[in-house]
Amino acid sequence: MIRKISGGVTAARGFSAACCAAGIKYRDRTDMAMLFSAAPCVAAGTFTSNKVKAAPVLWDMEIINAGCPVQAVVVNAGIANAATGKAGLDLCRATAEHAGKALSVPASSVLIGSTGVIGPLIPLDRISAGIDAMAGTLSDSQEAGTAASKAIMTTDTVNKEFAVAFDLPAADGSGTVTVHLGGMSKGSGMIHPNMCTMLGYLATDCAIPRSLLVKALRTVVPDTFNMITVDGDTSTNDTLLLLANGLAGNRPVSEGDGSYDVFLEALYSVCRDLAVLMASDGEGATHLVEMRVYHADTKENARILARSVVGSSLVKAMIFGRDANCGRILCALGYAGPDFDPAAIELFLHGEHETLCFYKDGCVQPFDEEKAAAILGEKEVRFSCDMKMGSEEATAWGCDLTHDYVTINGDYRS
Amino acid sequence: MIRKISGGVTAARGFSAACCAAGIKYRDRTDMAMLFSAAPCVAAGTFTSNKVKAAPVLWDMEIINAGCPVQAVVVNAGIANAATGKAGLDLCRATAEHAGKALSVPASSVLIGSTGVIGPLIPLDRISAGIDAMAGTLSDSQEAGTAASKAIMTTDTVNKEFAVAFDLPAADGSGTVTVHLGGMSKGSGMIHPNMCTMLGYLATDCAIPRSLLVKALRTVVPDTFNMITVDGDTSTNDTLLLLANGLAGNRPVSEGDGSYDVFLEALYSVCRDLAVLMASDGEGATHLVEMRVYHADTKENARILARSVVGSSLVKAMIFGRDANCGRILCALGYAGPDFDPAAIELFLHGEHETLCFYKDGCVQPFDEEKAAAILGEKEVRFSCDMKMGSEEATAWGCDLTHDYVTINGDYRS
Repeated sequence: MIRKISGGVTAARGFSAACCAAGIKYRDRTDMAMLFSAAPCVAAGTFTSNKVKAAPVLWDMEIINAGCPVQAVVVNAGIANAATGKAGLDLCRATAEHAGKALSVPASSVLIGSTGVIGPLIPLDRISAGIDAMAGTLSDSQEAGTAASKAIMTTDTVNKEFAVAFDLPAADGSGTVTVHLGGMSKGSGMIHPNMCTMLGYLATDCAIPRSLLVKALRTVVPDTFNMITVDGDTSTNDTLLLLANGLAGNRPVSEGDGSYDVFLEALYSVCRDLAVLMASDGEGATHLVEMRVYHADTKENARILARSVVGSSLVKAMIFGRDANCGRILCALGYAGPDFDPAAIELFLHGEHETLCFYKDGCVQPFDEEKAAAILGEKEVRFSCDMKMGSEEATAWGCDLTHDYVTINGDYRS
Repeated sequence: MIRKISGGVTAARGFSAACCAAGIKYRDRTDMAMLFSAAPCVAAGTFTSNKVKAAPVLWDMEIINAGCPVQAVVVNAGIANAATGKAGLDLCRATAEHAGKALSVPASSVLIGSTGVIGPLIPLDRISAGIDAMAGTLSDSQEAGTAASKAIMTTDTVNKEFAVAFDLPAADGSGTVTVHLGGMSKGSGMIHPNMCTMLGYLATDCAIPRSLLVKALRTVVPDTFNMITVDGDTSTNDTLLLLANGLAGNRPVSEGDGSYDVFLEALYSVCRDLAVLMASDGEGATHLVEMRVYHADTKENARILARSVVGSSLVKAMIFGRDANCGRILCALGYAGPDFDPAAIELFLHGEHETLCFYKDGCVQPFDEEKAAAILGEKEVRFSCDMKMGSEEATAWGCDLTHDYVTINGDYRS
């Protein structure tokens, strides 16, 4: 059974974190974070599908794809190190080498993440000074993990961390051991479901073969991080990393004994919670929007339909305005791509205490405007659609479109 | 040679128009328009790709696809007659029958267009009274065309009409005759390049076989109406109609004698002007945004790349804020889909008097922030990208994302 526990990236045994104010772009706040594992980790990652990949994405992809053991991650906020050419890649190499020396691990075991403005180069001296400061203050405390999750924020308004614990058979056959999986992520704008859509770092003490770690991440991402959208813009820097150091002492996870299913459920739980929190913390957002599509013909069609609704500017603006102009939900399903019968489907708006059917038999249904406005005033607005076609379903999460989104992105660099 | 002339939908011989205030949803303004041709027309049309098609779209598609002669169009603003099921289709039939009687033409020659809120039914008695009023006031004056173009507006801030004249060989062999093509369109929100993205009505007195009329429209739409975007939402009601009554007296257009190319150029000119005007009049817009992609490997890739940039919420918000955060242009190219080499391409910002290169050799280039802010302050903001791959090009148009867009769409129905 998966149990939610407090904490984040330091919840799992052997993982420590640190952060510092390196002065890369922001003033008067922390802007660098470090994650370190006492033992080398097997690692899996998913990366942006953007053709323009930031330098740290290229650096991490090389290490992850080569299957190198991973022991540290260095992250900065404020500058993305994207569209920086060879100088940006050189900076990554220098960062990893500096961190490797400071932590006494190979440079090839150091992963890098950057988020912020596209274009400028990050000053290496500040990165180096930041690494030196962090290497001396690493801590496995819950507070250290929380502080790291705050240091990687950009336009985020809340830090994002979750952790779970679960039991697996012990490696020595003596009953079970408790395994932990925790993670942090950042992401608020330039978020769209295409690969992982943000920076996310997951750390577990689970003993698991690399092949199963990779498989688990690939299984979970399409239904979690790839099902959120804030603005339809897929970043140049999206990175999700999952590190496993094996220190929990469990019998290595395998598909034959049910332990893989437990691990998968734990991973899904943390990824889903992080993803939904990112959607609700979308730039300028005042509402979380959830769209569940069920009885669809295929899983992929269910995903496409659900994402189309939460991605629609008109749906997003209507929720901001608490205007139950529900034809827009139907419209967004209609242009999503998958075929369906408009006369067969049924659409619902779910409040905390009440559900309204606002479309069936091919017609928008009369509904109580006051009730609808009240439901749209709730912090979390949920819609669902019965496609009447099959047995597949998917849920997507987004947020409303507000004046603040425009303000934030009309003047992002200053 | 194609000559721009004043006027719109009544510019071509034999076309008359009327409008009235039918009180369908708006108060104190006209909200219905009628277009009538003195002679039966061959007709071509493109329609929304949305799976949820409004009743008037289904009505028009049936007539256009059957190749029926067309003689009138009845349009209303305020209610879209979408998601109205069988009652909505019955209303279309009753509308066409009533207009057919009033104009002494077959109901099957009457096309219908509706734009506005999805869901409600349009009261037939108001439609019928509107038709009766308009049938008695049809006029081929320029003013009547202009008034019709105003009656079909919803959130549009300007009416949209253009016309051209061109010469073709006379049918009787006696030199040339002047042929006219004029049109009007409406569209401001729920606009996205997928088929024609709005209501548009084009009328020409050119004699042209239906097969060539259809071919011409299909040739021109992908580079004009399908290259604009306001908010990425493809409407349930998009309709573009092209009627040709042959009254100019030209030798019927054919592909063998060059006359088809002249007609195509005239059609492109009117469609492009209407499309660009719609983009610049996007809901809440303060800037027209143009993105030209050239030296692309294929035409379709050039279109996809150009549209991705003008469709990006982050690019749109940055232009509203006059913040030259040009990495976002690169980012939007990168997630568009087509493959390219980020180290090879070059990106430019074009002012009225100056061009800035802000990305080349894989790096964002230093540029004069003041100059960039000045260019972003111009009413029309133009970007271009040299893909360094081939010889194809495409241009897309959009607008900025503003507080007013959010306000308009947060409370559209009231």
